[in-house]
Amino acid sequence: MKKQKKPSTAIIPCPVILVSVAHEKQPNIITLSWAANVCSDPPSIAIGVRPSRYSYDLIKEAGDFVVNIPSRDLLDATVFCGTHSGREHNKFEECGLTPVNATKVSAPMIEECPLNIEAEVKKIISVGVHDLFIAEVVAVHMDQEAIDSKERLDLNIAAPFTYIPLTGEYWGIGKKIG
Amino acid sequence: MKKQKKPSTAIIPCPVILVSVAHEKQPNIITLSWAANVCSDPPSIAIGVRPSRYSYDLIKEAGDFVVNIPSRDLLDATVFCGTHSGREHNKFEECGLTPVNATKVSAPMIEECPLNIEAEVKKIISVGVHDLFIAEVVAVHMDQEAIDSKERLDLNIAAPFTYIPLTGEYWGIGKKIG
Repeated sequence: MKKQKKPSTAIIPCPVILVSVAHEKQPNIITLSWAANVCSDPPSIAIGVRPSRYSYDLIKEAGDFVVNIPSRDLLDATVFCGTHSGREHNKFEECGLTPVNATKVSAPMIEECPLNIEAEVKKIISVGVHDLFIAEVVAVHMDQEAIDSKERLDLNIAAPFTYIPLTGEYWGIGKKIG
Repeated sequence: MKKQKKPSTAIIPCPVILVSVAHEKQPNIITLSWAANVCSDPPSIAIGVRPSRYSYDLIKEAGDFVVNIPSRDLLDATVFCGTHSGREHNKFEECGLTPVNATKVSAPMIEECPLNIEAEVKKIISVGVHDLFIAEVVAVHMDQEAIDSKERLDLNIAAPFTYIPLTGEYWGIGKKIG
């Protein structure tokens, strides 16, 4: 038996990403979950951002950003960066995160995140209260200590986690099933 | 220390979805991972589909689809529906899945999936080898037995899983961390 619920953003599990962006005053970080890989060639991603958010104009002006995948020990910083505005906070400083230069884009990478994805904005699509930034991936970086002997990301070390919008909860990744 | 890798679709974890779509001959199912919630109001989702895939034209013609979230006991069907074409296969029949009528769209829901999301296509955006279908969620259904006492989806029963494109692996969801 199925129970009907009201329409909502119900796709699960969702990634949890820290988007870093450059700005002449200071770089900023915004936590997002409306995000996905959307195209294999050119490798492209999309992120949904509300135009009212401080980072919206920063990303639009810079034309690029970095998607940083946090490990679960960064959960507190992840929540902070999603609930405070860069208009009033220096999130790198207040969260103890370190900006390091990216190789292809103006946005800094977050050193403490085991996976960093440099991206250049290609299109901005209006959907509703969120706009969708479609961007091409131009470089990927992984922490040396999170790579296994086959040069692949070791998920047990990288320890990414997921957001479940239906319950408002964060859940860890479990075990390999296939 | 960071190690630079070539550009790729590196956002993790990714959802794993079974997209069902109507067709006069027989309904079809395609497994996708390039998918996300992208906008809160109207609740909207996006899925990336290659124009060469059989389901591409079906979705375009129907103008709607259902996103079905499989539980981990549907892993084999999930892999089958992502590696075989509806041009030669009746995937509902061959995978033992049951099409049931949706409430708002022409596409059928997959009864065996604990979460079903009805969606109407609003925009099709060309990105590269994948096109992005942006669609509005018009109804959500959950299995009665997967809902807890607060009427919320119980993740331990729904047992969604994730795809990790960097390693080509499927991983289960672990435990609540926040």
